[in-house]
Amino acid sequence: MANSITTDKPHWTALAAEKKQRQLESIPHEWIVTPPSDSTLDVSAFPETCGLLNAREIEITNTSVDVLLEKLACAAWTAVDVTTAFYKRAIVAHQLVNCLTEIFVDRALARAAELDDYLKTTGQVVGPLHGLPISFKDQLCIKGLETTIGYASLVGQYADENAVLIDTLIECGAVPFVRTNVPQTLAWPETFNHVFGRTTNPYNRSLTSGGSSGGEGALVALKGSPLGVGCDLGGSVRIPSAFCGLYGLRPSYGRLPYYGTRGTLDGQDSVLPVLGPMANSVVGIKVFMKAVINTKPWLNDPLAVRKKWDEDEYNLVDHGSGKNLCFAIMWDDGVVVPHPPIRRSLEIAKAALQNAGHKVVDWKPIKHKLLGEITRDIWNAGSAEEYMITTSATGEPLITSMGLDVANVTVASFRPQNDGMTAYQLWQLQKLRQKIRKEYLDHWKATASETGTGRPVDAIICPAAPFVATPHGKNRYVDYTAVWNALDYAAAIFPVTTVDSTLDGKAPPHAFYNDFDKDVYEMYDPERFRNAPVCLQLVGRTLEEEAVIRMTEIVDGVLLAAK
Amino acid sequence: MANSITTDKPHWTALAAEKKQRQLESIPHEWIVTPPSDSTLDVSAFPETCGLLNAREIEITNTSVDVLLEKLACAAWTAVDVTTAFYKRAIVAHQLVNCLTEIFVDRALARAAELDDYLKTTGQVVGPLHGLPISFKDQLCIKGLETTIGYASLVGQYADENAVLIDTLIECGAVPFVRTNVPQTLAWPETFNHVFGRTTNPYNRSLTSGGSSGGEGALVALKGSPLGVGCDLGGSVRIPSAFCGLYGLRPSYGRLPYYGTRGTLDGQDSVLPVLGPMANSVVGIKVFMKAVINTKPWLNDPLAVRKKWDEDEYNLVDHGSGKNLCFAIMWDDGVVVPHPPIRRSLEIAKAALQNAGHKVVDWKPIKHKLLGEITRDIWNAGSAEEYMITTSATGEPLITSMGLDVANVTVASFRPQNDGMTAYQLWQLQKLRQKIRKEYLDHWKATASETGTGRPVDAIICPAAPFVATPHGKNRYVDYTAVWNALDYAAAIFPVTTVDSTLDGKAPPHAFYNDFDKDVYEMYDPERFRNAPVCLQLVGRTLEEEAVIRMTEIVDGVLLAAK
Repeated sequence: MANSITTDKPHWTALAAEKKQRQLESIPHEWIVTPPSDSTLDVSAFPETCGLLNAREIEITNTSVDVLLEKLACAAWTAVDVTTAFYKRAIVAHQLVNCLTEIFVDRALARAAELDDYLKTTGQVVGPLHGLPISFKDQLCIKGLETTIGYASLVGQYADENAVLIDTLIECGAVPFVRTNVPQTLAWPETFNHVFGRTTNPYNRSLTSGGSSGGEGALVALKGSPLGVGCDLGGSVRIPSAFCGLYGLRPSYGRLPYYGTRGTLDGQDSVLPVLGPMANSVVGIKVFMKAVINTKPWLNDPLAVRKKWDEDEYNLVDHGSGKNLCFAIMWDDGVVVPHPPIRRSLEIAKAALQNAGHKVVDWKPIKHKLLGEITRDIWNAGSAEEYMITTSATGEPLITSMGLDVANVTVASFRPQNDGMTAYQLWQLQKLRQKIRKEYLDHWKATASETGTGRPVDAIICPAAPFVATPHGKNRYVDYTAVWNALDYAAAIFPVTTVDSTLDGKAPPHAFYNDFDKDVYEMYDPERFRNAPVCLQLVGRTLEEEAVIRMTEIVDGVLLAAK
Repeated sequence: MANSITTDKPHWTALAAEKKQRQLESIPHEWIVTPPSDSTLDVSAFPETCGLLNAREIEITNTSVDVLLEKLACAAWTAVDVTTAFYKRAIVAHQLVNCLTEIFVDRALARAAELDDYLKTTGQVVGPLHGLPISFKDQLCIKGLETTIGYASLVGQYADENAVLIDTLIECGAVPFVRTNVPQTLAWPETFNHVFGRTTNPYNRSLTSGGSSGGEGALVALKGSPLGVGCDLGGSVRIPSAFCGLYGLRPSYGRLPYYGTRGTLDGQDSVLPVLGPMANSVVGIKVFMKAVINTKPWLNDPLAVRKKWDEDEYNLVDHGSGKNLCFAIMWDDGVVVPHPPIRRSLEIAKAALQNAGHKVVDWKPIKHKLLGEITRDIWNAGSAEEYMITTSATGEPLITSMGLDVANVTVASFRPQNDGMTAYQLWQLQKLRQKIRKEYLDHWKATASETGTGRPVDAIICPAAPFVATPHGKNRYVDYTAVWNALDYAAAIFPVTTVDSTLDGKAPPHAFYNDFDKDVYEMYDPERFRNAPVCLQLVGRTLEEEAVIRMTEIVDGVLLAAK
């Protein structure tokens, strides 16, 4: 009687309400603040002025990952102090932008205390991330906690064990301390669901924080976490990183252990999801990647690639030791022309790199439109069935828009366009994708003739999206990130500037590639995007994480020097 | 009018006959010999006694890869001499066991002459495989040649470009010189098709040479090639290696460049086919792998893993430097009990390893039956549709058995058992497979408690099949190899002994696991398998190619020392 089991399940509204209530109760009462009214759009300064954090806690939470780790390792700051400071700031952030899902203060502080004891007793750190609080997107299972990935239907399902990456980070000495909000199904580049509601952008709450790791993006931007872990299937680490002004990395398939993550489209073996770090500094990204890879994740995750952290690759041995790099700028992807602030950020990057002695050429995108279409078709080969099965037991409706007025919107562009296909049809798509991956790799290799360095282009610099953080419901194009998922290229996000209405006036209409390009053009008005961070993306080839991190450090360095 | 196009295509029988005639004409007339009659089962000595090869050519063809390369590099032997010697022996082999498909003597000799000129002019070799003839399974596309993969329907389709591995080996200085036979669809562990017919085992022509790289196995065994490249989806490199008494390696997904290989189930992104070397010595395997990986295949194949040849891993740094290894012997897989010669070979290996100071424990297989079933279900999710589409245009019938009397056999166990499934259903299978991969990895890791070395088991030693080379049509179980494809573990084949009717008498019946196990038991009679080589398999974990090669050298060394 399978039916009687499913109909016994509480209706989704009851599940959502009960969970939301439990979340509220998990917040220490003394950490409740009075947030500014909804009309205050920029809340980025609030955590430091609200009075909940003392001067030392503000200092701790403003410290970058490398220095935090030094202070923790020499016991200048205890893990309990550091965890408490970030927890308080995270809870403040949550009251501003609604970024958290799971809150477990006692558990995190108990873990921190253990680490302090260990250091005191042995004089040794537990590992390279000793005492560092780390936040996680609501996909990384933690034993004893729920992982709802934005579905009311999944409330009440508690994990039996940790995701491999959680165990790995615990082995490294980290303190998992909060989990962060996502969109229902995870397959949106914004963040809204029936359980936890909407996460907004701390620099302008009328804008989205991006998605699907949008809770993480908003939290890290408010310095409520020194380091966050997101998941990227089509841009879900990079879009919120870009919209919230962060550094973020999308590693190649299998470079980090994914096993034990609750995902969307599980069992889809083609365009794979990957976990990736998000931080306020590129050094945070590096420290994290090196620490995790040095634990040999392939011993615990069958899909993790047996590839050590390679210091030669980090030192750009295959890229002329990083002295005279050649970057290729992709000004647009041939489908949607970016808004003025994005264009300006590319010009800033170009000038800074050239002034620093690097070469800059133009990147010619090939088949991005087709790659995007194939990738969506692969995901949608079985997505509708999965969403239906996940929600049907509780009657939970599928969300059809990320807009503020959901009821007035019908079917949005990110929903599956078909009712699935046969395995054979899927294989034909996957075969075509492999062919394009080969063409793209050859295309990259062939740039050796135009760089003047004797090497192909060292990295591509391109937008992360054709716009900065959009008003809610308006982020409807992910191919600036998703093509690199389809190609499995390592890609990092770095901040360049913020929207400036004086510098970023509306451009005259261009020759539109298509109607959607025109829609995106018409969306632009600098006032609408006031104060939004402007970030770019640096792209290397498959499994080039070390080189991508080092080149991002180089670009970041020349941008800072140029300011 | 798609129909009118397809019906214009010649009927498959005409295509097959025309191709077979062209093959015959490609053999230099002076290389035609008079082979022994069909009643002579063991033809392994014939190439050296037939009179076609002179003493020097016999010496060349009996030389192992490492020494061949030394002689070629110092011009003691020219590439033309070496290629001619192997070509003659390959053509003799073909007349004995029908192992070749594409024969292109002039082209290969012209390439060899170029290499000789280069060495003479520059004093340098072109690369680490300078002058080495290499044979290829009939899947690796070579520009200007057909690649029929056992289908009459594909006759007349000429490749526009080389497979990436062909280009890679040319860059290394190799001489591609023949291609070798396969079964129709490639999805059989024996070798028979409508175009080229059946390849037999040189040690006993009433037995199969295995498959699907069965032409390669027979050719290398007769020393008609110093090094062959096969393709392994479920055992297709290892089964013919084991049946023909060779060394063979199944690398992990992406360790060698696969792109440009004409495969079966193309676009299936889950249990992937891999290319792998086959040779008469383990040093041949090592030389090949190191040479190919050192060309950085990831620059030319988007699916190739960016992982350098790692001398530390070869030196077993993670395995106690190879001094006191712990091997785990899997006596049977819990589904089919191996025949007496296989059991004896495991006992020989165990004793030799223990005498050499290594530790030997028993391997407990988990979920092999389920893994095998899932793997077949994944392959068969779209296989029937692919086979139908490939053959329908020419009316070519699908082969339903590898037996001698094909007409009397209807549906065999290797044919698809279903009409395909939806993409969502496929994802559920793939999800289950990932779960088992995790369980298996944890199972391996947990053996650290029983090895006494402080490490988990260093490698598994197990049968490559429950039998040696079977009579034609009787090889109906591949899970001793296919489970490692499903788990993506690196696995090598090495020879141990040959069937000996005195030592390998029929065992008393055991408690049968199932009816099929009973059938396999009843198949055994030492006379039936007379003279067949007995090989075993050494299995490491994913991307442990270097360690697997080194451990195979160690096992090979102690076996030789024990003789």
